[in-house]
This record gives sequence, structure tokens and C-alpha cells, in this order.
Amino acid sequence: MSIESSVGKAFAPGHITGFFEIHDDPDPRRKGSTGCGVVIDGGIAAIVTPGEEKTEISLDGVSVNADTTRSLIEQIVDLPVHVECTSSIPIGCGFGASAAGALSTAYALNDAFSLGLTSNQLVEAVHIAEVSNGSGMGDVEAQYFGGVPIRKVPGCPPYGVLDRVPSPSFEVHCIVLGELSTGSVLNDGGFMREINSAGRSALRSLLSRPTIANFMELSKQFTLKCGLASDRVIDAIEAVGAAGGMASQAMLGETVFACSDGSVKEDVLEALSTFAEVTTYNVTSCYQHPG
Amino acid sequence: MSIESSVGKAFAPGHITGFFEIHDDPDPRRKGSTGCGVVIDGGIAAIVTPGEEKTEISLDGVSVNADTTRSLIEQIVDLPVHVECTSSIPIGCGFGASAAGALSTAYALNDAFSLGLTSNQLVEAVHIAEVSNGSGMGDVEAQYFGGVPIRKVPGCPPYGVLDRVPSPSFEVHCIVLGELSTGSVLNDGGFMREINSAGRSALRSLLSRPTIANFMELSKQFTLKCGLASDRVIDAIEAVGAAGGMASQAMLGETVFACSDGSVKEDVLEALSTFAEVTTYNVTSCYQHPG
Repeated sequence: MSIESSVGKAFAPGHITGFFEIHDDPDPRRKGSTGCGVVIDGGIAAIVTPGEEKTEISLDGVSVNADTTRSLIEQIVDLPVHVECTSSIPIGCGFGASAAGALSTAYALNDAFSLGLTSNQLVEAVHIAEVSNGSGMGDVEAQYFGGVPIRKVPGCPPYGVLDRVPSPSFEVHCIVLGELSTGSVLNDGGFMREINSAGRSALRSLLSRPTIANFMELSKQFTLKCGLASDRVIDAIEAVGAAGGMASQAMLGETVFACSDGSVKEDVLEALSTFAEVTTYNVTSCYQHPG
Repeated sequence: MSIESSVGKAFAPGHITGFFEIHDDPDPRRKGSTGCGVVIDGGIAAIVTPGEEKTEISLDGVSVNADTTRSLIEQIVDLPVHVECTSSIPIGCGFGASAAGALSTAYALNDAFSLGLTSNQLVEAVHIAEVSNGSGMGDVEAQYFGGVPIRKVPGCPPYGVLDRVPSPSFEVHCIVLGELSTGSVLNDGGFMREINSAGRSALRSLLSRPTIANFMELSKQFTLKCGLASDRVIDAIEAVGAAGGMASQAMLGETVFACSDGSVKEDVLEALSTFAEVTTYNVTSCYQHPG
């Protein structure tokens, strides 16, 4: 029930991108990316209350700038607010944390201040905050849609067009090997042309055979083609392949995500754990959980 | 994981419509309804295997015609199949069972026969089966989107436009007081003009204040205006109101659905239980569960 109150709580899930193509546009609502990824049951929970003199945002108890969330807040409320975020995904590692933080904050603000906005209006505000800050280009659309979203046309609703790889829930196993800044990659023009060409070709192939196995294979090919992967990332991807599973790099993060059918799961987990601690998430058909 | 196999299993959730407007169109993909409803965690699970001479469909162990599911099957596979459905929602009572049966079957067929269709393509096939059979006009779009979907523009993707009432999960309590045929109502022209006018006005009001409380209030006003409710349905709706909750009629069913904030939940359940046995579902942010 959405009862008027001065406290709002919400959750938004993380999103791991397998491959993508960036689309520029003078209208921020149409700017964004196409591609495919998985929405997971780890994400960011936000608790929002009215603030005092200025807006304060904390993440897992530590005061943070959180530029994307701050831009989002400025768009939809004209008051100082206090936002407490807790995260069950790594930050800055390709899990779409900036969008998840801003989206959970948007849902919570809508509730706390009875803003009367629809989900699409909240998603639009987060999308604009993301593309203005260069922190992400399509995570929020995926996160509000759930499952294994295919972003066919870039932008927030109603401009963007989404589809899904049909799939029941399944597990993804993740290892984080370091950090990678989305902004620094997205601002290199020559590099982006190669990425875009690889992303466009992967999307075309996925739409002709939209299965999880093909998504994982196309993501791996994209990773190898676009040259963002460190040697350790490539080693981990190959180790999972040798164990009978499928793995790729989370875009954009120094992170490897893997899945497998049940029969080789233990071998895949063992292969990953030689590189770093493994966290397992469920790919969820849920776009939003209670706060 | 979508591994090739000759058995497919999937689940699709039920959908209770609060108010609607029918939109006719010569193109079945653009024909449908606008309005708002709730997607619940009860629904229909389907198990699909290759059939022998002809397609056979059973529901909870009993052989059924299941015209909508049968039309769906004819559209996407050219083989006899065996479909075993089990339902956790009442059939023919306003829970979107025909769409849930066809959608779960579509997901399961896609998996069992490696059809290589995306979710949007499966939803389109179910949508066409629904409108051709007059069994429903928008349930499938809601069911694949999840939560509290607002259908702003009718039709399957990419024609239809969806939004959501932002909300965490909450409970709806349902009582079934009889059956009502969707087809018989949708085929009465004069009646439909009144319903459509009431539905259009409710949608406009909801978009200006998209909250669960307003959705329930507008659904009740729609129910009272459009004259589909029996005296017992109206009595039950009023009894819930007197107990401090909110209730309306499931469109189209002789069913009342109710919700409340926690403080009066027991009173609402007591009021409903004087009419019939109460079943409680969660309004879910999930569009599909594993089979």
C-alpha cells in the first residue's frame, strides 16, 4: 500500500551487461545503449527521510557523493533529503550499482513525499541522471523490466524498446578482480567505434537465437573482440570454459560472471574460486522488491 | 539455462483487472484494452511434451478444450503436443487464466522445441490467440510485465505501451462468488460504450495520481458505474469498506479482490469470509517463475 508517510523504502536490483552498443542523441531520453544483460537478486536498498540543511547520502554507513543519485534527487524533489543505501552488489564493478542506487532512491522518494509519479516517470528521471553523469547507459531500463532484458532500441520508456530472452530463474556466479570506470571507457571515441560494431553484431545474432547459452557465447565473443578484458579476466573466462561452464566479463567492470547447467556447477565454482571469492546471485524475474 | 530438451516447463502469473477500456482495431496486434490491474503470485504452470496423433491439453488432470491455448499452439508449433496445466487461480473468474495458461504453454513450448522466439514474440502469439478467441484483451501484456501494470496504449509489444503504479509487494484477498463469461460481456455493444467511457476516465485519473489506494478507489467507482456487479459483489465490496479496507470487482469475474494496510487486515479478512472462502495472493513484481 502506498500510504503517505515521511519515510520511503525501496529496493532495485543490479544488472550485469554482457554486450552493448552506445547510441548518442541530443535528447538524453533517447540517448543510451542497446544490448543484453541479466538482472540479479542482489541490488541496492534505499531508505529516504526528509533532510535538514542539505541532501546527505550514505552507502553502507559511509557518506558518499553518489553523483547519479544526487542528480536524480534534484530532478524530482526540491528539498534536502537523507538517503541511506545498503548494497548487496559490489560498487564500480559492472553490476549497474549507480542505476540501482538512483532507482531505489527514486521509488523511495516517490513514496515518502507522495510525488505521484509512475514507474516510467521515475525511470526517465534516473535515465537522465545516468546519461548526464556518464555513469551508465541502459541499466535502469533493464532493472525495471527484470529477467534477461534485450535492449532493442535505446532510451527510457516510451522511447526505448525492450524484449527478453525467455528463461526461468538461474544462477550466475561472479568474481570481482578489480575496478573499471564506466566514464573513462565511454569517453574514448576510437575505442567506442570498435565496441559499437561488436555490440551491434552480437545483438543481431542474439535476436536470431535468443537463448541463455547464446547470450553467454555472444558476450564472451564481445569481450574478446572489444579488448576491455585484462589477462586475469580472460584467464578466468577460459578456466570456466574448461570446467564446462560459460563465462564472460561484466560490462563495464573487472568482473567475471559465469553460469552452467547443474551437472558442472561445482567444477565452475572451483575454477572461479582460484581467482577470487565467488558470489552467487539469482537471475531474477523481479524488477523491484519491498524495501 | 535453456538446454535443448523435449520437455518444457514454465509458469505464468494471474492478472486481476480493476478497470479497462476496449480498443478495436483491424490488426489483432493493436486490438486490446487499456486499463490497470494487479499481477499475482498465483497462476498457471505448464509442462509440455511432444504429443502423438493430436494435441491434448489437460488442466488439473482433466482434459480441456482450452481454445486460447490451442490457438497459441497452432500459431507457434506445427506438431501435436501434450500440455499438462496446473492452476493456482480459479478459472473463468477474472484472474486472467486463459492468458496465463497460453503464456506458460508458450514459454514451455519455446523451451521444449527450441523455437528460438523472444518473450515479445511469444507474448504477441498469445495476444493474437486471446483477441481472436475473445477470451481476454490485455492480460498477457500485464502478466509478462509484472507488478501493477498500467496499460496506456493497447496491443502487444512493440505496439502496446505499459507503465506501472510504483509499489512494493502487497497482499490481495480474493473471494469468488460465481462465474462470468468474458466473451458474453465483450460482445454487447451498447454496454461496452458505457464501460469504455468509465474506463477511459479512470485511466486519466490514475495517471494523475498513480497510487495503489487510488487504483482501488477508481476500480470500485468503475465497478459501480458499469453495472456488471451482482448484489452480492456490491455487498462484499461495501463490507470491506466498512471494515476499513478497499475492494472492487475483478474484471471480468464474479470475484471480489481486496487490500488493506496491515492494521485492519484481520477485519477485512473477517468481512470477506462471511461471503466465501478467502484466498490471499501477493501482488508480485515477478512476471515468470521457474516451472
